[in-house]
Amino acid sequence: MKLAMIEDEVISYEQLPASYCDRGLYFGDGVYEVIRSYDGQLFAFEEHMQRFGQSLAAIGINNVDLADIRKRIRSAFEKSGIANAKIYWHITRGHGPRDHVGGPDLKPCFFMTITELNDNAAAQVKARGMKVSTFPDWRWRRCDIKSLNLLANVLAARDANSKSCDEAILYNEQGYVTEGSSSAFFAIFDNKLQTTPLSENILPSITRIFVLECAKAIGLELVQKPYTIQEARGASEMFIAVTTRDIVGVVQFDDAIIGDGKVGSWTGKLAQQFKANRSKYCS
Amino acid sequence: MKLAMIEDEVISYEQLPASYCDRGLYFGDGVYEVIRSYDGQLFAFEEHMQRFGQSLAAIGINNVDLADIRKRIRSAFEKSGIANAKIYWHITRGHGPRDHVGGPDLKPCFFMTITELNDNAAAQVKARGMKVSTFPDWRWRRCDIKSLNLLANVLAARDANSKSCDEAILYNEQGYVTEGSSSAFFAIFDNKLQTTPLSENILPSITRIFVLECAKAIGLELVQKPYTIQEARGASEMFIAVTTRDIVGVVQFDDAIIGDGKVGSWTGKLAQQFKANRSKYCS
Repeated sequence: MKLAMIEDEVISYEQLPASYCDRGLYFGDGVYEVIRSYDGQLFAFEEHMQRFGQSLAAIGINNVDLADIRKRIRSAFEKSGIANAKIYWHITRGHGPRDHVGGPDLKPCFFMTITELNDNAAAQVKARGMKVSTFPDWRWRRCDIKSLNLLANVLAARDANSKSCDEAILYNEQGYVTEGSSSAFFAIFDNKLQTTPLSENILPSITRIFVLECAKAIGLELVQKPYTIQEARGASEMFIAVTTRDIVGVVQFDDAIIGDGKVGSWTGKLAQQFKANRSKYCS
Repeated sequence: MKLAMIEDEVISYEQLPASYCDRGLYFGDGVYEVIRSYDGQLFAFEEHMQRFGQSLAAIGINNVDLADIRKRIRSAFEKSGIANAKIYWHITRGHGPRDHVGGPDLKPCFFMTITELNDNAAAQVKARGMKVSTFPDWRWRRCDIKSLNLLANVLAARDANSKSCDEAILYNEQGYVTEGSSSAFFAIFDNKLQTTPLSENILPSITRIFVLECAKAIGLELVQKPYTIQEARGASEMFIAVTTRDIVGVVQFDDAIIGDGKVGSWTGKLAQQFKANRSKYCS
């Protein structure tokens, strides 16, 4: 008799809830997005939907009606009544018996949560600046796909947390910075903004696009070129960029104090510019 | 109001079943094992439990009572009454709000299924030999950990399936074979058994240990050295090794016919030796 067991309870295999047979759980066989709202309006919704469509296509989930997903997200967001919300959703390839290939009739599974962002706590971190620590980039070779395979990110984040740091900055086998465990990463050297160019090893961050736009607007020159963690220690400023908190200055990188240990002036200007621009992308 | 949505149904966040908040689903933050039984006895149970313990430790899940897990598996297996069973289990770091670090009170989640193996279907594949196709090894840098981050394996397996192949053989950025998408891989060159040495990029396959033991028993010399996919095409024999099907000959590698297109004689001898040895590891 086929059986399943959840914690210490044996049940018949046929009684197993679909969520336990989700390919997301067995394999991380799915992709996700996180967006936020500002004052009741979704920020950069279309940009995230576009990337979401690219992630789905990249792993060959081709039977999703994105127009329907858009509608679900909007209607649930309105229903929530949360002004400054964090909206997480994922789609997995389907559920069924655990088999790498999967049957021909897999039907994608959609899941979403809408919770409130703690912007006050974020404001405190933005004011004091973050501490970050470095961790090897153990992720797979297709970080351009926003997939549910996030164990390397989790291990890096947990390592940072154990060192009382707010974020982990990942570096590859050659010692070059790739990005944060859940953020894009930027450094300022000699009054120039430097960041690692996009590739299959980097998530095409939506917030990154807006950072580059802001840099242009304030006359900050951009250099898209990798730099080592050793070089990073000598930056005059640093910051991370992430949907839920936009631009957050970094004041300590491992044991190196960055600049004068306070959030840098370019970083402050970029954050202000971001705030000035953001309504353009709210809907 | 915090909300969740499953397919097209909105529910309150508080009503969300724990399985939807499992870190296994959000991040693949867990590890697993697959074992089998032969004629009512578990094969290499202790070896798999030992590797499972190593995987847990490697990702820092330190609050699991392995003696209790052993008991659960044995008792459910006995209850199932399946003589030739496939037993899958995983443990994730716990469930809770989606946060990379996770709270301090995470309690590991255990899940298991016991189903019947189709040894007749496997015997047919063993008799005819497998076709395999190659795929880039996109996996993370810690494949020595048997984690739930298996999307790269899924994509490789689906690619192989789309080419009417039975398994994908992965190759790294330098063109060297690492292993199969869900199996260990071996080639025979010049009457010597060659396989990629273990490293952080390879799963320490349990079946591999038994293959090496069998090779010794039948006087087949072993070379632990990487080889390219180009070199592999010139092998006189090839096979994969995997818990559920032990040793299965490979007769086609991409478009290259291996040997005379039938399962090789060394492969046959190894499979026979495996069968002769296996009762030693049944319990």
